[in-house]
Amino acid sequence: MRLRGPLKDRDRWITRGKCPIEKAMRVVGSRNAMLVMRETFYGTTRFDDFANRVGMSPATTSANLKALVGAGLLEQRPYQEAGERTRNEYVLSDAGLDLMPVVFSLFQWGEKHAEAPTPLTLVHSGCDAPVRVEMRCEAGHEPSNDEIDLRVRVDGRAQQRAR
Amino acid sequence: MRLRGPLKDRDRWITRGKCPIEKAMRVVGSRNAMLVMRETFYGTTRFDDFANRVGMSPATTSANLKALVGAGLLEQRPYQEAGERTRNEYVLSDAGLDLMPVVFSLFQWGEKHAEAPTPLTLVHSGCDAPVRVEMRCEAGHEPSNDEIDLRVRVDGRAQQRAR
Repeated sequence: MRLRGPLKDRDRWITRGKCPIEKAMRVVGSRNAMLVMRETFYGTTRFDDFANRVGMSPATTSANLKALVGAGLLEQRPYQEAGERTRNEYVLSDAGLDLMPVVFSLFQWGEKHAEAPTPLTLVHSGCDAPVRVEMRCEAGHEPSNDEIDLRVRVDGRAQQRAR
Repeated sequence: MRLRGPLKDRDRWITRGKCPIEKAMRVVGSRNAMLVMRETFYGTTRFDDFANRVGMSPATTSANLKALVGAGLLEQRPYQEAGERTRNEYVLSDAGLDLMPVVFSLFQWGEKHAEAPTPLTLVHSGCDAPVRVEMRCEAGHEPSNDEIDLRVRVDGRAQQRAR
């Protein structure tokens, strides 16, 4: 990654407290929150299943589900089994769905680098090809690290590079 | 995401303790660790700069850098300013570089959903088009959530779907 324009002098700018990464980590910056999100992608919706599959106590499960609902990643939906009281289940909101690249880029990294071989794999149902998380530009290229510029956006568009 | 083959019955499998996401979160599952990684992509290499730009005490900075070196995401490289003792700076390893989609998918999510508007943007230096983190299959399609199957890999290949 190369710093461009006014960003070149790193001592003159700082993102502390305003960084999107930092704000995202406040919401999903714990093992339990991230694994609850993983489970929602696997289709888990019910309290006991989250507790069991992530490995959390009821209190921890409750706290995590509440926080993720509060942050807008999950939505509550009432359901009722015959003869039981009405309970809530938890489903992905649009904001939760947008977390998919985060969850599965961690999956991809962990599988490659953290000694976590897994038989699970993501596949495009339409063509049977494996699905990966990638960095691409809108023109469809896959830039390498040193072909990516960090720039200041001006009027909604990125500033041209100033070499 | 749809569960296929033997995964369909979610009560019969569990990834607890073996999940690549879980293992990745052990390494970068804290605000500070993730923001140190952000900084390495921005070109930060030196102890005081990490402390200042992430907002960490010297002890926290030291602990985080040590853990990330230990996990293989950063490498130490000695340097010496004139008249000073030799110190270490910290640079991305290949494993650290592979964390880029994780760091910038969090960026992308935070910008869209966590009220973190930012003037910073990633651009492909070759063509000036914005760079995004995406989920794509190897055939080049961008499957929607319900076009992605979770399957069991067999002999290095994903099992065909069994409806």
